[in-house]
Formats: sequence, C-alpha cells, structure tokens
Amino acid sequence: MQGNFWPDHIRRLIEQIGMEHPIIQAPMAGGPSTAELVASVSNSGALGFLGVGYLTPEQIDLEIRKVKELTNRPFGVNLFVPEISEAAKPSDKVLNCLQEFSNELGIDPPQMPGPPKYSFEDQLSVIIDHKVPVFSFTFGIPDKALIRDLIERDVFVIGTATCVEEGVLLEEAGCSAIVAQGSEAGGHRGTFGSTEGTPMIGGLALVPQLVDKVEIPVIASGGIMDGRGIAASVALGASTVQMGTAFLCCEEAGVPGPWLDSLLSSKDISTVLTRAFSGKYARGIKNRFIDEMSLLEDEIPNYPLQNSLTRSLRNASKDKGDSDFMSLWAGQGAAMSRKLTAQELVDALVSETYQVLKSIGTNL
Amino acid sequence: MQGNFWPDHIRRLIEQIGMEHPIIQAPMAGGPSTAELVASVSNSGALGFLGVGYLTPEQIDLEIRKVKELTNRPFGVNLFVPEISEAAKPSDKVLNCLQEFSNELGIDPPQMPGPPKYSFEDQLSVIIDHKVPVFSFTFGIPDKALIRDLIERDVFVIGTATCVEEGVLLEEAGCSAIVAQGSEAGGHRGTFGSTEGTPMIGGLALVPQLVDKVEIPVIASGGIMDGRGIAASVALGASTVQMGTAFLCCEEAGVPGPWLDSLLSSKDISTVLTRAFSGKYARGIKNRFIDEMSLLEDEIPNYPLQNSLTRSLRNASKDKGDSDFMSLWAGQGAAMSRKLTAQELVDALVSETYQVLKSIGTNL
Repeated sequence: MQGNFWPDHIRRLIEQIGMEHPIIQAPMAGGPSTAELVASVSNSGALGFLGVGYLTPEQIDLEIRKVKELTNRPFGVNLFVPEISEAAKPSDKVLNCLQEFSNELGIDPPQMPGPPKYSFEDQLSVIIDHKVPVFSFTFGIPDKALIRDLIERDVFVIGTATCVEEGVLLEEAGCSAIVAQGSEAGGHRGTFGSTEGTPMIGGLALVPQLVDKVEIPVIASGGIMDGRGIAASVALGASTVQMGTAFLCCEEAGVPGPWLDSLLSSKDISTVLTRAFSGKYARGIKNRFIDEMSLLEDEIPNYPLQNSLTRSLRNASKDKGDSDFMSLWAGQGAAMSRKLTAQELVDALVSETYQVLKSIGTNL
Repeated sequence: MQGNFWPDHIRRLIEQIGMEHPIIQAPMAGGPSTAELVASVSNSGALGFLGVGYLTPEQIDLEIRKVKELTNRPFGVNLFVPEISEAAKPSDKVLNCLQEFSNELGIDPPQMPGPPKYSFEDQLSVIIDHKVPVFSFTFGIPDKALIRDLIERDVFVIGTATCVEEGVLLEEAGCSAIVAQGSEAGGHRGTFGSTEGTPMIGGLALVPQLVDKVEIPVIASGGIMDGRGIAASVALGASTVQMGTAFLCCEEAGVPGPWLDSLLSSKDISTVLTRAFSGKYARGIKNRFIDEMSLLEDEIPNYPLQNSLTRSLRNASKDKGDSDFMSLWAGQGAAMSRKLTAQELVDALVSETYQVLKSIGTNL
C-alpha cells in the first residue's frame, strides 16, 4: 500500500468515519450484501454496508450480529424510507401475466400483500440499539427529528440524491453526507423529490453540480468500477465513492449463479431501466421478465405493490437457478466486473487509484 | 499558464494535432459554432470545430474561408454521415400539428423536402480542397476507402461513438481517434451501430470501457464544463475532451438570446431527450414544442424527414426571439455555464484543470 495519499478533505472524512480508504460498498438489499461481504469490506479498510430495507426488525438484528462477529471495524446499515402506498388494485392484465409466469414455475399465483407488520421506526430502533456508526437511507427523507436524534447519537447519516434539488433537501434535513447517484448506477433509482420524473444525470455532470450547491461531503456513485473511476470522482470533487456492481462478483457476496454469469460474461453488457420488478425504476441486465413486462409498462403498479407481487416469482427463479425472472441489477460499468475477494478488490482499487493519480500528475 | 503539465500520452496527441491544450470545442451544427468561435478557440490553443452538416458545399467553402482569415492554427470540420432515408410520408397528426404551429407563427406550412442537391462526398471534397487538418463525422461511418484517403492526406479523422461496439467499429474503419459521447451530452446522439436502440451510457462508465477496447485515443465528451470534468476525463483514460455546452455562452458563439437566457438562468436546468425537432434523439432544455410533440412521440418520422419538416418553425421562432419552437440543445452540465470569451474560457479551463490535478495529487 502507498500510505494515506488522499487529499486532505478526504482524509478528514475517512478519519471521522474510521475508514482507511474512501470506498463505500453500496448497500444492496435483497441478497448481495451479506454479513460476510460487509465484514470483509470493512476489514479491508473500506466501509461495508448492509442493505436491510426488505428485512424485519428481527432479521435486521440477526444480520447486524453476524457482521459484528466478523469485524470490529465500522460498517453501515441502509433502510428504505417508506412511501405512501396507493390503495390501487393492479390491473387484470398485470395479474394475469404474473399468474402465467407463476404457473410456468409451478408456484402459487401472486397474492396482494397484507398490511406491514413493522414500521420504519421499528427497523431503525434495532440499528440504534446496536450503535451502528453509519446509517444511510434511500427513496426519501425521514423526519428531521429522527435525523437529529441519530446525529446526536454520533451516527454518520447519509442520504441519497439523484439530482441537485434532492441533494439540497437532504442537506437541509441535517444529513452528514450525500450519495450522488449518477444515471450509471445499477439497482433502484433513489429518486424522491424531483419535479422532473426520474432524473437520469450522469455522474460527470451530477457530482460537480451537487458539490457546488451543498457544504456537506458528496459521495460519488454509479459506474465506478476501478481506480480510474475513483480518481475521476475525486477530481469531480467527491469526498468518497460508493460502489455496488463492483462488489457483486466478490466471493463473499450473495449473488446467485446466473446473475454472476451474466456479469462475468465476456460479451458487452448492456443494461436497461425497468419498473418490471418493483414498480420503481431500477437498472439491470435485460432478461425475459423485463422484455415481457415492457408490453404492460403503463399498467405496472407503483412500488411497493409491484415489488410484493413479483417476490415469489423472483425467489422461485433464484431457487431454480434460472435467470428469466430474476432481477439482474447491474450498473453501466458491469462489463468491468472482476471476480476477487473483497480484500483483493479493495486492495486493487486503492493501488489503482494511486497509480492513476500518479500518472495524471506526472508532469505537474 | 502552468506550461505543458499534461501526461505524456496527451502531450503526444496534442503535438500531433498542433494544439496546446487537450480541449476540443464540439462542432455544433445549425448556428453555434460560428467561424468566429472556431477561430477564437483555435487561437486560444484549444481546437475549434465547424459543424457544417446542414450546409451546402458552397456554404462550407465560405465558412472555412472565414475561419482561415481569422486563424492560422489548426481547426476541425464535422459532417453528418448520410442515412438511408425512409420513403414514408409523415402521419396526418404530425403534419396537422406542425401546420397549426406554422399558422401561429404566421409562416407557410411545412413542405416535404425535395431530393438532396449535393452529396456527402461533395461536402467532403471542399474540406479536402481546403486541407482542413482535422475532420470528424457523426451518425455513422463513411466508406473505409474514404477514411483511408483522408489519413493518407494527413487528416486527423475522428468518429463518434455512444457505446463500446460503435467505438470498435470506428477503430476498424481506420479512424485516428474516437469521441466517446456520454449520455450527459447535449444535442444529437451520435448513435449509428448499436444493437440496443439509443445507448445512454454515462461518461464515467463509457470512457474507461472504450479505452480498454481500442488502441486509438478516446476523446471524452458529455457534461464536461470545467477543470473538474477535464481532470476526471483524464483520470478515466481519455486523451482529450470535447466540450459543446460550455462554449455555447461564449461571446463568439451563434446562440440566439432566448437559448442563451435559458442556459444562464440561475435556476437548476433540467434537460430532456427528444425526437421532436429532428426525428433523432437529442438532449435539450424542455420547451413548448417538446412538450406538445411528446403526445405524438410514436408518430414522429425519423431523421432527416422530421428535421426538414420542422426547419421553418425553428427558424421563425429564432427570428421572433421566442423559445417556444427553438431547439435549446444543452448537456446535463448546462447549469455550470459561464459567459466568457472563448479565450477566457479556455484559459480558465486549463488553469482549473491544473489546480484540480495539483490538489488531488497533493499527498502522493
């Protein structure tokens, strides 16, 4: 390693959080960010992140315990800010289509979800009880009082923005830092307060504009896969990066075989934005489910209803090891995926960033 | 100035072309890249670029002569590779809509275009006769023999790619370098050979993937507005940058008042992709024409037919100084626009890049 070569503002931030390197492993709910991955990433000097938005308070407690058994380093936990769900019933066309797929997989037809058995506050209180040092949230902003309480407990609180106006709202709400989610990012768009639909702003444009508008640190995310992306983010003014897709192929990640195969295929990988799986836009590798649901695009119910309706299909597809109905989330840098351990990946990223900074500054 | 601080591979390229700084002003056809802008940019040590795709050979000759009167430095000229135009007649809905707008502006209804009076080869021969040192093209690839002939005449030939597969095709065709047009870019998408519609890949993901796949230099473009964007592009592996929107507010550019006002407004600027003006996807600031045509999205005829049909509307809108029917092309970095002369802008960009590289390398 080359010692701590990061610029001063980055040094200050990573010291504050207790990391060695300004690299955050993105919380990837629904499987990939296992306790093993999170702990390995944190042990390597980066920041591991549990994505527990879909879990019950009991499950969250269990995951955090597992991480704590495997590392003494700081790590983060991410939750979804709940959205007002529509009472609307899905259209018959959507239900029929999902039912046909269920028949094909030999599982029960999708059921309308019951009322939630726990609240965001219930989930959060587990995180608070465990004194998790970093908390991030997506899809909105929790109560300001709640954020203030976390800050008073010395939690580092990170919000997610997909445009400048959302970043400004997050700073006003009292966050410690903001993830700038570029259009390159895999998985769900964190959009919550845009007046313009779902903003798809590339990181090269989003990061500097957000840096200019807010005082708190900006975390670049989307399409960053190696030291070049990290060095570029630092040049744009980011204080650290958050990388999801890059960690999907780590040994410790919970990524089913067909998903892994599609990431490591030697072909060019083209990703698409889709509402098919959850009712909310997300980026992933095209498959049969995305293709067939695109014909019903206008009738797909909003998140979280569509997410509930497709859960059994996604799970059955995973169990069968077939990628047809699986959400193969991936960012636009997916073709740069590498199969390494988390430690090897973090080491490579740090060493590459050093080399890039060295080579672009060689004639200064 | 800080002398030539660029990394060696960039130094070699700019020396080859005869530039001082690795900054190319994007060819912006249809007005913005005036001979005055092109010459000022080249005189400042960057590379000015005429966009003459819409002009007759006689007009191209005149523009090149004007540039040559104003500078002895190298500059470039850009053409559109012609596309097989469909014989299709536009739908009555589209024609009626355009006719209503024409009535509103008090101009004749749109006419179906006649057969072209000159060819791509006619346009190109003017450029060859003038021994223009840099030639770029968009929307396709000319004959390989044609590219070979240009290379033999010592012309630096640049193609435009919006995805890795297009970049590979451009290298195979014999180009000297490739513009990687990120999804952030304003104006028309250069897409021509993608198997996946119109790729919208952010620069942070596109540039390094293209750099990995081709041997020739990659020119980053899209969303780059200041030294941070340039330094980031260099970190990603680009050998130079191409910037369009950043030059729109230069005094020497040919940008009508309402367009300029929309770029320099203090509000956040959000851009959209639209086929409304030309039948081909392009990024610009939303206005009434984009809004109203979006209702007929599926019926808008392909480029170049729609482009011909909307020409009189765009021109009349410009003449009236009203932005309703004007194409307000802009990239996703538009809110970072600055009103400077070309010389001031280039000086600022070089000095900012130096500062950014200095500051991110301070602890190496």
